[in-house]
Order: sequence, then structure tokens, then C-alpha cells
Amino acid sequence: MATAATEHERALADSSGSRRQPDRTRKRLLQCAFDEIHRSGFRAASLDAILETSGVTKGALYHHFGSKTQLGYAVVDEMLRPWVEDAWRPVLDADDVVDAALALCRQLRRQRTDSVLQHGCPLNNLVNEMASIDDGFRQRLRAILQDWHSGVVAGIRRGQANGSVRNDLQAEQVAAVIICIVEGAAGLAKTRQDPLFFEASMQGLESYLASLRPQPT
Amino acid sequence: MATAATEHERALADSSGSRRQPDRTRKRLLQCAFDEIHRSGFRAASLDAILETSGVTKGALYHHFGSKTQLGYAVVDEMLRPWVEDAWRPVLDADDVVDAALALCRQLRRQRTDSVLQHGCPLNNLVNEMASIDDGFRQRLRAILQDWHSGVVAGIRRGQANGSVRNDLQAEQVAAVIICIVEGAAGLAKTRQDPLFFEASMQGLESYLASLRPQPT
Repeated sequence: MATAATEHERALADSSGSRRQPDRTRKRLLQCAFDEIHRSGFRAASLDAILETSGVTKGALYHHFGSKTQLGYAVVDEMLRPWVEDAWRPVLDADDVVDAALALCRQLRRQRTDSVLQHGCPLNNLVNEMASIDDGFRQRLRAILQDWHSGVVAGIRRGQANGSVRNDLQAEQVAAVIICIVEGAAGLAKTRQDPLFFEASMQGLESYLASLRPQPT
Repeated sequence: MATAATEHERALADSSGSRRQPDRTRKRLLQCAFDEIHRSGFRAASLDAILETSGVTKGALYHHFGSKTQLGYAVVDEMLRPWVEDAWRPVLDADDVVDAALALCRQLRRQRTDSVLQHGCPLNNLVNEMASIDDGFRQRLRAILQDWHSGVVAGIRRGQANGSVRNDLQAEQVAAVIICIVEGAAGLAKTRQDPLFFEASMQGLESYLASLRPQPT
């Protein structure tokens, strides 16, 4: 690693201990690759751009990941999966799944930035770009989606058990609808590149979520 | 054109009159390009594959379209737009928009083929691949989506006026939700490559559509 380290890496290592340096280099590469893939897609992602923004050498990149494809798989496993899980954990853990999902909707509306409107959802992008052409991406993305779907299904069932969600609904269908609206809205927002369609979709999702509550009798 | 025509083209021209031949050649190129772009995406679409399946020469392709990008724009304008409009016309024209949309859902579920599960929706694919990197694609895809959304909004409002849709709903939000579920489901189905998630999404959409009807009092 020493021969592949840049001045920037060596300065960091000198100031904070060199034993953790390879982990930090790896993490920095993953973060820069995640951002570059979000902006450009996986196939058009530029390794030079990733090296430039991370300040890491090509030798260090290939030492850690071996190939661009392996770097892509690591981005899915170590960046994209926790990104989805962290965003949805409040919903998956909630006693009142409707309240938690409504709070997430409001957060998504507040957080929608030019970057999201222009570049879409990192998960949805990779699904659409890579799932039908690369089995390694497909298996990983499929597992993330299955876990996401299963988690929302469990939340809906918990809500049905504790009386916060209507019992006449099929949890698998409700969870699929919620995920499709979120990912459909993120994908289509890229084309509109204005917040209106995304806003209408999120408000429509909020109405849908409110309709999951038992009707007052 | 005569010098660019293949044996296949000449045989067709001989049997049915040569004056309409350029139009048929153009139409055949567009159909083969639409299929190839659906399978491979626009950037990975192979002009050689389009020429081989259409039986048209490279000279004829460039005579009609000038460049791969212009061919792509023509596919969006002349194949993709009518493909969306034909599929949704029964919904846009219906007096009972809920009934018409439910019928379309059932049709989408019946029609889901290995090709759709593997390759997704042609519109959603191009939105996700090209909208943020090419302004010509983005403007065209955005116009198709706007017209689709406006058409569904008009159908919802007609339903609200004639009593077949609840009046407490915002038509823009309902239309956005319907479009997001359809496009989200088509995109995510590619990753699952099994019909279960797509099926759950479509059944969930049917429940949502049924919920748009005025409640019996």
C-alpha cells in the first residue's frame, strides 16, 4: 500500500496512525464511487473521476477492488444497502407504521434536491441500468429489494396486529405499492426535472398511507 | 435509394410497388430499433443488430435518420409515444375511468411476458437511461409523461364530475400515483425477474383504483 499512497493519503496517515489507513482509503473510494455512479450510471462512471475526487491512486483502487465491476458490487453491498436500510429503518421498526411512513414522506419531500431531481434514486438507477445485463448486480439489487419489501410487509402486519392498519388489506400488496410509488416517483422526477410531479406523487402517497388506517366507526 | 436497397427490399418493392418502399423501410427500421433499444438500452443498442433484423443497409439507415441519436429520437416520437397512447387511450377516453383502469391492470397482468419482466417498460427504461444525460431525449420523454399525466388527470376529473370518482381526492395526485405504481412496478420487476412482485404491485394498484370510487352511503 505504501507505494500506492498519495501525498494526501500519507498526510492523513501521518496525522492519525497508518494502520487504519487502508480501511479509510477503501471507504473513501466507496463513497466517491457511490456519488459518481449516482451521477453517471455504472457503465459511464469514470474511474479517473473517482480517483481524482478521492485522491487515491489507480494502484490502490485495484489493490482494494480488483476491477471496476468488483468496485460496483462493493458499492451496492457496502454503500447502497445501508443507504436504503438507514432511510427505512424508522418505518421498519415503528409500532405505528403509517405515522413513520408519513414522516419519511415529509422528509423525502424536504430533502428533494436538484441532485435527486436530476439524477434520481441510486437504487432505482442501478436496477434500471444493470439488473437485466449483469447477474452479479441483479442478485444484489434483488436481495436489497426483497429485504426492503419484507421489512415493509412485516411493518404492515404489525400495524394490523396492533390496530393501526386496516385488516382488510393484503400486506404484500400494500408494501409493493408503497415501494413502487417511491421508486417510480424518483425515476420519473429525472425526466420532469421540476419538483411538481415528484411533489404530487409524494402527496398522493401520503393520502394512500392515510387510507391504510382503520376507518372511524 | 435504389443503390441502398437490399435483395429483400427489392423483392418487397417488386411485389407491391416501389413508391411506398422508402416509408416501409423507415417503418421497419423504427420497429427493429424500438425492439433493440427495449432489449439493450439506447447506448448499448447495436446498429448492426438493427440492420440485420430489419434487412436494411447501413446506407439506407443513415439516409433516413442521419445518426444513431436521430434514430433514437424518431423511435421516441414515432414508436414510443403511440405505444403509450394506444395502451392508455381506453382509460383517457372512458366515462368510468376506474373501470377502464382496472381493465388495463388486468390486461397488463395477463400480458406480462418474460420480455417485460426481463427488459422492463420501454418508456421507463429510456427515462432512466437518457433523461439526465441528453436534452433531446429528456424533452421528448418529458412531453410524453406530461401528456400521459394530463390525460389521466382529465379522466379523474371527468369521473369526479359524473360521480364515479370521489370528490375529496386531488386529481393530479391520484394520476401521479397511478403512473408511479405502473412505472415503478415495471422497473423493479426487472430485478426480481419473477412475476410475484409485479403481481402484488398490480393487485395493490387494483385495490387503490377501487378505493377511488365514492363510498356507498
